[in-house]
Amino acid sequence: MPSPKKVVVAFQGELGAYSEIASRGFFKESIHVSPSKTFELVFRKVQKEKVDFGVIPIENSLAGSIHQNYDLLLKYPLQIIGESKLRIAHHLIANSGVTLSQIRRVFSHPQALMQCSKGTARLKKVKVIPTYDTAGSVKKIKDEGIKDGAAIASDLAAKIYGMTVLKKNLQNDFDNFTRFLLLSKRGDPLLNANKTSIVFSIRDCPGALFRSISVFSLRNIDLYKIESRPLHGKPWEYFFYIDFAGS
Amino acid sequence: MPSPKKVVVAFQGELGAYSEIASRGFFKESIHVSPSKTFELVFRKVQKEKVDFGVIPIENSLAGSIHQNYDLLLKYPLQIIGESKLRIAHHLIANSGVTLSQIRRVFSHPQALMQCSKGTARLKKVKVIPTYDTAGSVKKIKDEGIKDGAAIASDLAAKIYGMTVLKKNLQNDFDNFTRFLLLSKRGDPLLNANKTSIVFSIRDCPGALFRSISVFSLRNIDLYKIESRPLHGKPWEYFFYIDFAGS
Repeated sequence: MPSPKKVVVAFQGELGAYSEIASRGFFKESIHVSPSKTFELVFRKVQKEKVDFGVIPIENSLAGSIHQNYDLLLKYPLQIIGESKLRIAHHLIANSGVTLSQIRRVFSHPQALMQCSKGTARLKKVKVIPTYDTAGSVKKIKDEGIKDGAAIASDLAAKIYGMTVLKKNLQNDFDNFTRFLLLSKRGDPLLNANKTSIVFSIRDCPGALFRSISVFSLRNIDLYKIESRPLHGKPWEYFFYIDFAGS
Repeated sequence: MPSPKKVVVAFQGELGAYSEIASRGFFKESIHVSPSKTFELVFRKVQKEKVDFGVIPIENSLAGSIHQNYDLLLKYPLQIIGESKLRIAHHLIANSGVTLSQIRRVFSHPQALMQCSKGTARLKKVKVIPTYDTAGSVKKIKDEGIKDGAAIASDLAAKIYGMTVLKKNLQNDFDNFTRFLLLSKRGDPLLNANKTSIVFSIRDCPGALFRSISVFSLRNIDLYKIESRPLHGKPWEYFFYIDFAGS
């Protein structure tokens, strides 16, 4: 049972997921975590006040935006109250006693597999197998006692499940960061916010997007990012998500 | 062997894929098709002149952009010489003699499963299983003689493999279109192009994106779409892909 004084934070994945590392990084004090099978479940737990906060990845510096979470930000009326950037170090993890030459299968989340495509291509006679979670793949090879397989996941996952790191830093690019958002149901505006995200749709007419963006630029408000997602029921019209400086 | 007079067009997926329907739609005359396992293989076949043209999906009106193909457009120096929009009608397809109540597993590409999420949720006791291809899933249940499974794919796939359509139009939204691009290696500018796509990156400084977009807007050039993809090696900087009116 969580002690009443500790905050509870939901994230997607098993214990040892990168999202758990990000979740703990948001708080100075020790927290309780609530691992969740899907991103939507994280949103739902926050919305229904089953947890105090939710943490989701929104963008990776190599693989790009996590578009499903953009769609969920629109679906659930939650507030973004924090952001953090985590350097992602992917390790090849196996049961103890297993050596690199025994590995024939590598399990991980499709995003992690994409970020380690060069490293896995160099492994000989190895098949990559997409799974729903990085840390969950470590759990799987442990639970099933797999000897010819390894998982790509975090250092924390290797520690939690008592596994061996066969190869460190398998990612294609050392500059591999994921940006995480801290979500809350409380609607209070933050006192010292230095970044704001909004979503809007525009009339389908020439120059509409330009005029929307000019609202910011003419006031010297710096735009960090624009993302677009389809507007259902209106083919080729979009929701625009804009991150800008200030509160 | 392809007759020397017919053009050969590569697409991703098995025979009966939506991309095959799109490929045939680009040409008045009959064509030869070259089914390819991955999107990258389509680009490579065109680049190496193994085929005359390639056809790739770039955006779906419900699921959004196919970001992998944006990345491949940058990686391979091919020209976009045509565009078409195809209404996507997903059908539930099974071996003949199989009835809807027997179905326990539904196979299809993750995009098709996402587009039919409401329809499959209404089927009782059914597990959805992601595969690499829509038409390939039809081929799979045929080849393996699966009696408790169905595939979500096109009418053409049902015809090609001689299968039964159990349920028509399973997609969540009737307005479900995919936009396809016709790719060629030849660099000749098109004489009567009415749409142009460019990709660029900008200096990481305030207002840079606004000033880039203003180049078009101040000349009354209509922008159809902006997409951004990560610029590798420079976290939180982007390539911008812009589609605009005219040639």
